[in-house]
Amino acid sequence: MCPDIDFFGVRMDKAVVLFSGGLDSTTVLAMAREHFSCYALSVDYGQRHESELAAAEKMAALWGIPHLVAQASLGAFGGSALTDSAVAVPLEATEGIPVTYVPARNTVMLSLALGYAEVLGAHDIFIGVNAVDYSGYPDCRPEFIDAFGQLANLATKAGVEGRMMHVHAPLIAWSKARIIQEGLKRGVDYAQTVSCYQADPQGRACGRCDACRLRRLGFEEANVADPTRYQSS
Amino acid sequence: MCPDIDFFGVRMDKAVVLFSGGLDSTTVLAMAREHFSCYALSVDYGQRHESELAAAEKMAALWGIPHLVAQASLGAFGGSALTDSAVAVPLEATEGIPVTYVPARNTVMLSLALGYAEVLGAHDIFIGVNAVDYSGYPDCRPEFIDAFGQLANLATKAGVEGRMMHVHAPLIAWSKARIIQEGLKRGVDYAQTVSCYQADPQGRACGRCDACRLRRLGFEEANVADPTRYQSS
Repeated sequence: MCPDIDFFGVRMDKAVVLFSGGLDSTTVLAMAREHFSCYALSVDYGQRHESELAAAEKMAALWGIPHLVAQASLGAFGGSALTDSAVAVPLEATEGIPVTYVPARNTVMLSLALGYAEVLGAHDIFIGVNAVDYSGYPDCRPEFIDAFGQLANLATKAGVEGRMMHVHAPLIAWSKARIIQEGLKRGVDYAQTVSCYQADPQGRACGRCDACRLRRLGFEEANVADPTRYQSS
Repeated sequence: MCPDIDFFGVRMDKAVVLFSGGLDSTTVLAMAREHFSCYALSVDYGQRHESELAAAEKMAALWGIPHLVAQASLGAFGGSALTDSAVAVPLEATEGIPVTYVPARNTVMLSLALGYAEVLGAHDIFIGVNAVDYSGYPDCRPEFIDAFGQLANLATKAGVEGRMMHVHAPLIAWSKARIIQEGLKRGVDYAQTVSCYQADPQGRACGRCDACRLRRLGFEEANVADPTRYQSS
């Protein structure tokens, strides 16, 4: 273990938090920082817009959390509306696995988090996946997270030496409304988060893609005014 | 399935082969191309020298195999002699997991291969890990490869739809001598491969690091003249 000392002299274990700057991962970071000395990791995988990464940067700075952006060129493979400009982002709900699914994205992001955790001496990794809203994505399911946890212990020096790696996905079974409520309790300013698949350079949302629809519905169900900055407003 | 048609009109399934341009992965590629329509994937993870990637490029072109270089910034985390210039490459054999171990490297490389395979419609991934020579690396063990195979089936659209992903590590239990013999049978020109941890820009080996020692020993045991281009020669 390699604990950090917090402002009040309390020892806290380190954790790596995958942090996109979106609604879900911002909530996870707000939760994790209550118990861990957090290291936020964003992954630039060739997503269509970079305002998400800019939002992440800003938020991490606000909370005084070290923030690293790793590169992984998933965009080079194409095959997803999020990384391939030849594939349009759908503006209506679709059946089955949507075209916004990025092949192996969460596997790649967790792998990078694992490498970072091992270098830091951290044994805890947080990811904001959610099986309820995104049931179409195979790598958002509890069985995927469990399998990655098992892999993490076989893949690393820490695992070999008997120090377990833990992969936490605290939002996995929550509704978007509950995620928002838990974040608000912890002072998250959701106006600063970007969820939209095609946000503009200022981070303003399109209001029409899947991610926007689910987010808006979440605020409605949570009985909270939607603070999202939309392109039309 | 998404088979390709070869020169003789034979249908071959696609496979992604992780290909560094080193001795092991070149042998794997030579084996895999006998049975699959191969797509070679190199990963630029911030390794100290790029002559390895240049060797991979040249070899793939020679065999007419599509070759893609993906980026993954493992170097940003540091913590390994291969990615962090502050950590020296050891020139003597060491006990335990060596400092040339790159945290989560094989997990990240397999994850990228998984993403590429899914986009291509391939269900086979090849990796040249070897548990005999590199027993110090946790992510070269058979149990790690098996765990990744299980994860791959949970992580992907193909897995959800019941089409199994297979991770092949044909060299895992072979001696370096056997690897060399199998490659020679298939016409591999090992003079073109780069294994050295600190090769010069022309791809010439230092002759002193772990990778050089194991490679040289392999040629000795296989009773084959060592074709490696060394810096001193």
